[in-house]
Amino acid sequence: MRDIWEEQLNWINSGEPFVLARVIRTWRSAPRKTGAGMLIGPGMKVAGSVSGGCIEGAVIEEALEVLETGQPRQLNYGVEDDLALSVGLSCGGEVSVLVEKHWAFSNDPETRKVWDTLQNCIRNNQPAVLLSPLAADSETVDGNEIPLLVLPDKGENVGGFQNNREEAAELAMAAYSGRENSIVEIAGKNSFIQVFPRQDQLLIIGAGHITIPLVRFAKELDFMTVVIDPRGVFSTPERFDVPPDQLISKWPDQVLNDWPLNEDTYAILLTHDPKIDDPALHILLKHDLPYIGALGSSRTHAKRCARLEEAGIDKDSIKQIKGPAGADIGAQTAAEIALSMIAEVIAAKRGRL
Amino acid sequence: MRDIWEEQLNWINSGEPFVLARVIRTWRSAPRKTGAGMLIGPGMKVAGSVSGGCIEGAVIEEALEVLETGQPRQLNYGVEDDLALSVGLSCGGEVSVLVEKHWAFSNDPETRKVWDTLQNCIRNNQPAVLLSPLAADSETVDGNEIPLLVLPDKGENVGGFQNNREEAAELAMAAYSGRENSIVEIAGKNSFIQVFPRQDQLLIIGAGHITIPLVRFAKELDFMTVVIDPRGVFSTPERFDVPPDQLISKWPDQVLNDWPLNEDTYAILLTHDPKIDDPALHILLKHDLPYIGALGSSRTHAKRCARLEEAGIDKDSIKQIKGPAGADIGAQTAAEIALSMIAEVIAAKRGRL
Repeated sequence: MRDIWEEQLNWINSGEPFVLARVIRTWRSAPRKTGAGMLIGPGMKVAGSVSGGCIEGAVIEEALEVLETGQPRQLNYGVEDDLALSVGLSCGGEVSVLVEKHWAFSNDPETRKVWDTLQNCIRNNQPAVLLSPLAADSETVDGNEIPLLVLPDKGENVGGFQNNREEAAELAMAAYSGRENSIVEIAGKNSFIQVFPRQDQLLIIGAGHITIPLVRFAKELDFMTVVIDPRGVFSTPERFDVPPDQLISKWPDQVLNDWPLNEDTYAILLTHDPKIDDPALHILLKHDLPYIGALGSSRTHAKRCARLEEAGIDKDSIKQIKGPAGADIGAQTAAEIALSMIAEVIAAKRGRL
Repeated sequence: MRDIWEEQLNWINSGEPFVLARVIRTWRSAPRKTGAGMLIGPGMKVAGSVSGGCIEGAVIEEALEVLETGQPRQLNYGVEDDLALSVGLSCGGEVSVLVEKHWAFSNDPETRKVWDTLQNCIRNNQPAVLLSPLAADSETVDGNEIPLLVLPDKGENVGGFQNNREEAAELAMAAYSGRENSIVEIAGKNSFIQVFPRQDQLLIIGAGHITIPLVRFAKELDFMTVVIDPRGVFSTPERFDVPPDQLISKWPDQVLNDWPLNEDTYAILLTHDPKIDDPALHILLKHDLPYIGALGSSRTHAKRCARLEEAGIDKDSIKQIKGPAGADIGAQTAAEIALSMIAEVIAAKRGRL
């Protein structure tokens, strides 16, 4: 739903109720994954999509009825191979879509509170997990049931599931740890669990020539990119044709002490300069980040480790640093070095390091 | 010089003589490699660069004198660490620049012929190696000497070095096979060898959702990208925010039989569809390409190999196909799969497969 998030906020601000359709189950080559959303408003106003064009027409029709009645629906479609191919998919299958009036326009104050909380989480890049009740027969949905929002960071939750909240929250946490949407059964009824993870962030220390392609690769891979370099000649936005989300012209220790460093934070150090890289490492190594990579030869890396040890950082912490960093692809150019580093970041993210 | 190639042609078309400055020797952290070029015309008209701003001012001054006298010069600069840092380089060193009137405006018809031939090679994506005579004392250049252009593909050469052409051509071929510029000594005199390799091409069979990020990555890594897909719904330019160099809506065997397939050609097959992938493989496997990768599980790949064997292709040829293709980074999303494939292409290019 990230792709329609801003549009959704604009639609809500305009004050006119609309419908949200979300993919809750997919077929083999489905172009949109579960959790993908489409907004449908009065007058066939549409944003986003739930398939590559196979079922949008049918969904819009149903959505306009949901808008009128306020009664959510679960829609199940079979997509024939021929139809799938005609809209550019390699094969067909089954897809289910949950269609409901957007939570912001619910008559129920608890549901509106769930939405407000979710909205805050996304704004502050905090993770959240949403459980939406489905009907047991997979066709009607009990409109009186209230969704539950679980906040993995805070151990809090808001909304419905009064009678089974503990079980529901546990299932939500399991979905969060696997970062996977799913349909689960709670007390004989199905619910759709959608995980809204934090956006991964890539911290890049150093804004030299490797940083330029690295930012481009990282953004293509959906990372929020933060580039930190105290050297003004490097940290100027003009050098970047694809600009990082944040470009900070300060020393790393001026920035990182108060920075959110968590399990979705990946860090790459590129300056070769102990005056810049080392203070960053002193802070980063205090957190259990999934990836810290530092550019440089084996010799440079050995020196770096020796300096950190001398500064009193324990050996096990220092071992967190991947160095020499970068997948072994024989990288030569700046773009190739950037590629080797981002490939290693993905390997770390996907548990292949 | 690729970055200023088009501009250079425009300047030549305008008819006004100008000077070409090329980096022929670099220091440790030099931002521009050897072969990087800058054009300097009357009225301080400038394109390209030979450093990150350290020495451009001095080079322009000398270039305007070369433009007047027609006498080429070799300039040697020491760049202090402090100056280097102030223009965004991590350290200084030495750099040499060859400054000469552009070959297109030479008084010598042989030199102009060298340029015409080089220009044709680049236009037709054929490799070429240029030897430019330097002076023995590294400071003056004998303006009467004619450069030599060697065409590795054709075993031909044009231009000067009458007395040592065989030796010069051999050194050029050695430089070409390593794809490396260098300064060599021939009969007691120095020459600068610049390799103009073919641009690597990446053939992508299939224009599905993985192709979109793959093209973006490949262009960032300087590949010429050619996408072939007979399915009209896929092979439309609107689907690509970064368009491939060529997007061809035909069956692979309609295209590849007459396509230049050589040691700079990398191929990725993405359709999963034997009707599309297999005819491409039948042709690609006849050539000794540095990389042929095919998307799909081990099971899909085993079936593919069985089909090819049944079609009479010998086992050793079939082994050229990398399958399941892609570096082992646990890729999940389309962009991650594209990343894993292009990382493997670079590994093949750099001899790490």
